[in-house]
Amino acid sequence: MMEQRLSMVTLAVDDLPATRHFLEAGLGWEPGELPGEDIVFYQAGGSILALYKRDALARELGRPVPAQALGSVTLAWNARSEEEVQFTFQRAVDAGAVVVKRPEKAFWGGYSSYVEIPGGHLLEIAYNPFWPIDKEGNISLSAPETA
Amino acid sequence: MMEQRLSMVTLAVDDLPATRHFLEAGLGWEPGELPGEDIVFYQAGGSILALYKRDALARELGRPVPAQALGSVTLAWNARSEEEVQFTFQRAVDAGAVVVKRPEKAFWGGYSSYVEIPGGHLLEIAYNPFWPIDKEGNISLSAPETA
Repeated sequence: MMEQRLSMVTLAVDDLPATRHFLEAGLGWEPGELPGEDIVFYQAGGSILALYKRDALARELGRPVPAQALGSVTLAWNARSEEEVQFTFQRAVDAGAVVVKRPEKAFWGGYSSYVEIPGGHLLEIAYNPFWPIDKEGNISLSAPETA
Repeated sequence: MMEQRLSMVTLAVDDLPATRHFLEAGLGWEPGELPGEDIVFYQAGGSILALYKRDALARELGRPVPAQALGSVTLAWNARSEEEVQFTFQRAVDAGAVVVKRPEKAFWGGYSSYVEIPGGHLLEIAYNPFWPIDKEGNISLSAPETA
């Protein structure tokens, strides 16, 4: 059977140093060992986030890679509290992300914000009180048991 | 500090039942509890994969959500062997995915294939011998220690 998981999410970017700067200097993420000039990997919990220069990815795929259609794929980073959403949202904006939606109560019962990160990809920064996050950072659809 | 992880990847889709059918009937994935008609969540290791109807997402964002620009974001599912790449690639194609690149040795030393899944998103199905996958399915950038 196919194990139900995601191994990696790759964002195509035109200006790799600009997106790296946002993630590393801005958000404090640390890259893995750098395999070359065209790609960078970040350990992201039990998955991997990759940035790949658009032209290099196009060569690998054998077809052009158009610019991201904002919102067609959204990455979400879930915080452990509303306060952490506010803090992380502000940190992202200070680091150069463009505001799409400021932190607010969401209709689904959580607290959510959206930014466009340098490189043109959409990032949701949210808190969902119904989805527990364990100490390793794994998030789960299962609601905690009621006592 | 911002914990270095991804909580969720959301794919905007026009025909939610078609993409669900691919994932569930085709690949055998099981959805979580269904919160409504516009969205479905799948536990994916320590992250979550979501399918969200494009028009509903556009209402939440307050802006239109264009169709995916194929390759601007790629999801990858890493197998534990080349044989598992072949098997899973074929299963995806049999379930309606469009071939972008058949399984082949990749220049970076692994074995890789790409398909476009129903809904217009790019999925890499690959084996990377340098990235260990533990029994829970977590993948790691760290190469195994040499003895």
